[in-house]
Amino acid sequence: MIGTRGAAQAADLTDVRTTNLTVVLRYVRAHAPCSRADIAASTGLNKATVSSLVTDLLERRLLRETGLVANRIGRPATMLTLESRPYAAVGIEVAADHMTAVAIDLAGERLLSWRRASPLTGPPGKAVAAVAALAGRVVGKVTGQGRQILGLTVAVPGLVAADDTVRFAPHVGWPELDLRAQLVKALRRPAYDVAVDNDANLAALAEQRDGGYADIPDLVHLLGGVGVGAGIIVEGRPLRGGHGRAGQIGHLQLDPGGPECGCGRRGCLDAYVGLPALVRRALPDTAADGPVVDYAPEIERIVALAGAGDATVTGALVEAGARLGHAVATLLDLLDPRVVLLGGSFAPLAPWLLPTVEAEVGARVTIPDAGRIAVSTLGPGAAAVGGAARALDRVEAGHLPALP
Amino acid sequence: MIGTRGAAQAADLTDVRTTNLTVVLRYVRAHAPCSRADIAASTGLNKATVSSLVTDLLERRLLRETGLVANRIGRPATMLTLESRPYAAVGIEVAADHMTAVAIDLAGERLLSWRRASPLTGPPGKAVAAVAALAGRVVGKVTGQGRQILGLTVAVPGLVAADDTVRFAPHVGWPELDLRAQLVKALRRPAYDVAVDNDANLAALAEQRDGGYADIPDLVHLLGGVGVGAGIIVEGRPLRGGHGRAGQIGHLQLDPGGPECGCGRRGCLDAYVGLPALVRRALPDTAADGPVVDYAPEIERIVALAGAGDATVTGALVEAGARLGHAVATLLDLLDPRVVLLGGSFAPLAPWLLPTVEAEVGARVTIPDAGRIAVSTLGPGAAAVGGAARALDRVEAGHLPALP
Repeated sequence: MIGTRGAAQAADLTDVRTTNLTVVLRYVRAHAPCSRADIAASTGLNKATVSSLVTDLLERRLLRETGLVANRIGRPATMLTLESRPYAAVGIEVAADHMTAVAIDLAGERLLSWRRASPLTGPPGKAVAAVAALAGRVVGKVTGQGRQILGLTVAVPGLVAADDTVRFAPHVGWPELDLRAQLVKALRRPAYDVAVDNDANLAALAEQRDGGYADIPDLVHLLGGVGVGAGIIVEGRPLRGGHGRAGQIGHLQLDPGGPECGCGRRGCLDAYVGLPALVRRALPDTAADGPVVDYAPEIERIVALAGAGDATVTGALVEAGARLGHAVATLLDLLDPRVVLLGGSFAPLAPWLLPTVEAEVGARVTIPDAGRIAVSTLGPGAAAVGGAARALDRVEAGHLPALP
Repeated sequence: MIGTRGAAQAADLTDVRTTNLTVVLRYVRAHAPCSRADIAASTGLNKATVSSLVTDLLERRLLRETGLVANRIGRPATMLTLESRPYAAVGIEVAADHMTAVAIDLAGERLLSWRRASPLTGPPGKAVAAVAALAGRVVGKVTGQGRQILGLTVAVPGLVAADDTVRFAPHVGWPELDLRAQLVKALRRPAYDVAVDNDANLAALAEQRDGGYADIPDLVHLLGGVGVGAGIIVEGRPLRGGHGRAGQIGHLQLDPGGPECGCGRRGCLDAYVGLPALVRRALPDTAADGPVVDYAPEIERIVALAGAGDATVTGALVEAGARLGHAVATLLDLLDPRVVLLGGSFAPLAPWLLPTVEAEVGARVTIPDAGRIAVSTLGPGAAAVGGAARALDRVEAGHLPALP
């Protein structure tokens, strides 16, 4: 706690109780199945306190007893695990060409994962209606299973202000848009929390919570798509910035003499590795068919052709990898994360991108033993998973469901 | 608290007491003179607890009663303030061409500020001896005033690992160097804490604690010198990165076709705005006099000539400002700080740099209402001030001096 002038807040006993409830909940998430004695031994809380906290969490249906008895020295112990049945959390990822919806339970298990090719570049009103319709169907599905919704978060490829207003989303072409308020209205003021956040931020959150790098407190998720975004986690917390819009890396200028970018300048990262640029270079015949409305089939074609050794495609991927490496080296020097993850459209292309990215980073970073580069294990829809995970994080931050 | 899997630690009562002592201490620093009742009203702690905490802090000689009685409704109150007399904290900033030493009291007031032109680019053993000698003289001076040293931190222009080992400091030419251990030995194992940290990190800490931007939780201090470093504060805490070496911005490549850099590549930020590059361009006659050993007189000449409207100098500063603006725009897009401060060698040149930096940033950042750009009010030696402030931060983080 450094230099938080004026921000000092004293600890009080209500806070201590809530903090300790979340400590137990997070411990069980990480170590289930585990006993009350395990929790006491690891958290430093005394056994009577743990017992009372566990009873509270059982009543809120956040934990359940598995009924299993462990073999160990001393009395057999009742084991605890997260209660997966009563709750669900929903995330919807909005991209220029599609939406992905994900629902997960309290343990992070996926209950459903839907993808809809659906250009969202039309008028914002239509886009809001499309998102609300998809949200309504997902919510209907999981509440039909008897689950209570903990929260819904929509991931958008753009700048999202602290009040959940979308400020700038050029790839979907929205103007400033109070998406949260409009969704709440379209969903008829639901009882659950509705939120909007930047897609790369949520992808990073998912990565850290449920991905292959969950134990790494300092990471960046580079989310490839029509544009590129960076979701940054520092010391286990998302770096949001002073106005809530950190992670804008798409217009990092790599070469003032590079190709034209949609922003009017030249040589931006997006102009090399964004999907329109990549498809134009790897599949020059595609442009002749008119504008691309869903990039998934194009990515599949690139993967197939690269696998077959097509020179145009592999050449385009080597070029993209070198440019991506330049951006990754910049992130490593500035932020020093332990790992930079290639996600979104970069993940399926990683077998061809990664060697060039690594070579470029090796030649560029200021010192040699920087963080490593890896591929996200979450697959497409990471931001939707992160949207759902956000509701679970809120629970673990102390927004516990009420006692029944 | 998001996604800190496994990092959960329960609150206990010892922690609560220490936390509350630091809450009171920080409150008094920010609001002195203030009464016990003020503290209770603002922190949410009850009056008896505040009274007990204040007594403790008085006994540790961290607070004192001013004896003043405030005019207010109800009983007159004894006012409290930080006790400035018994303690001092020391910071020493090491640069390629000089050292700066600063000592401050608990309230952050400067007790002394010394600058020594002293090339530290020789063998590390000689540099360690020079730093230790300067430290010894500063410590002798303030202990001679009856003060107890709270800590000494040395600021170095390089990468510093979490164990205070200097890993990479090309501008002073040191190899990997266990500076802390060698200083502790040279200073004969002093009773106070000895630490080593990156200069830009410490400058940012000073900025946030005692500079003109102390209330801004998200800021970057761009420390100009022989090389450029970025000290990054996120949500009131220094961003150190997974290996403790975030903020490497000197080799951000702005133009692959730019001038040669010492790192072997072209067009790095250092190759445009580092002092050697800037002096070469602004004062082309200087190179003829042999290598520069102290840049202070060269900066003074640049300021004088720019003030007189010299076309070569102002042209060099406009060019440097544009390149610095490119780097600042990158920081604003990636990190979204509320303010980027120009410090170190950039501060005296700011009247000529700032307009171009601002114009370049305006043309580059992804959205228009990004953080603003300002000049550090700390002057040269900001990293030394930060080094001293680090010891005060440790106190406020709970490393309280023992009861006598």
